[in-house]
Amino acid sequence: MTQKTPPDIVIGRLPIYLRALNALADQKQEVTSSYELGERLGISSAQIRKDLSQFGDFGKQGTGYHISYLIEQIRHILHLNRKWDVAIIGAGHVGQALANYGGFVDHGFVIRAIFDVDPRKVGQQINGITVQHQDKMGEEVRRQGIKLAMLATPASSAQEVADTLIEAGVRAILNYAPITLAVPDEVKVQSLDPVTKLQHMTYYLEP
Amino acid sequence: MTQKTPPDIVIGRLPIYLRALNALADQKQEVTSSYELGERLGISSAQIRKDLSQFGDFGKQGTGYHISYLIEQIRHILHLNRKWDVAIIGAGHVGQALANYGGFVDHGFVIRAIFDVDPRKVGQQINGITVQHQDKMGEEVRRQGIKLAMLATPASSAQEVADTLIEAGVRAILNYAPITLAVPDEVKVQSLDPVTKLQHMTYYLEP
Repeated sequence: MTQKTPPDIVIGRLPIYLRALNALADQKQEVTSSYELGERLGISSAQIRKDLSQFGDFGKQGTGYHISYLIEQIRHILHLNRKWDVAIIGAGHVGQALANYGGFVDHGFVIRAIFDVDPRKVGQQINGITVQHQDKMGEEVRRQGIKLAMLATPASSAQEVADTLIEAGVRAILNYAPITLAVPDEVKVQSLDPVTKLQHMTYYLEP
Repeated sequence: MTQKTPPDIVIGRLPIYLRALNALADQKQEVTSSYELGERLGISSAQIRKDLSQFGDFGKQGTGYHISYLIEQIRHILHLNRKWDVAIIGAGHVGQALANYGGFVDHGFVIRAIFDVDPRKVGQQINGITVQHQDKMGEEVRRQGIKLAMLATPASSAQEVADTLIEAGVRAILNYAPITLAVPDEVKVQSLDPVTKLQHMTYYLEP
């Protein structure tokens, strides 16, 4: 493994490679190539080889990649050989959809707590988890040692909530609120605001 | 305006700039600078000036940007000076959260149709829209001239649904299904799979 940290954009492609490799493994395929992966993902095979080579030597010229081995290696690189506890903040439509999504636990992300400010939501059960009041959030996140949070509050409160989460030890935020969060360098944010994603695409459509 | 198409990564930052400018305008601010925008967004002021300069000359050295003018220009560039009709495919938790999200119509994205294969969901109303059977999707999308779709089906059917949508005229897909869609060059896809976004961030966390 090289010492230099690979660019973030390359890190971001590893989960995409992993997803494609898992799909091939589900079909009982044992070996693949950068060409086959590239065809499935719309990425050039040269790019895939270059990306993977930044983390190690995972395939042999001409024989391709052993899928189960490459899956194991990427999971190791991404720190996925463990479970990760996650908190959801906001029990509105988005928070509820997240709490009910089965894909998280399948991939080792376990929802441990849900918070909201609405007294009508506090105490309700969503997918087996009791919604707690947001006043308890910092204390509860710290107590459970939760490092990952999914932020599904209105934009108006998102920064304040993020500050409290970070103070309590959260180091990675999946942000559904339509606002750019200001966070310290050591905290990672991925934003999933659907409006900005739609606006990105309308550029390419005929007006 | 220059003739060369700016890189996609730059296009993708325009909606982020627009969101920040709208927030400033909401606070009745009239003028801003690349420095102020950069501070809010965690992007260097030089990057912001370089990005915007690819689309035109929107500010004067030393006097900054007039916010309302820059908003108008970015909206024009992104083709946002019109309403866009959108279809949602999949009326599960994610599809319902999307259908109930008020942020779309505020930004000119109007949900016109929701489709699902589940007979128990077909005929139900979600936020005033009647869920239709997915068998009607191609015909209905074509009839309404819908170019944008939000795909919230299981991964197993997402590619087939995308193919039908594209055949019916859809040119931009917001993809919530955990699969990389294969689409023709003229069709844009933005993927919002939360699992891959979480996996991107766990790379940076202590294992």
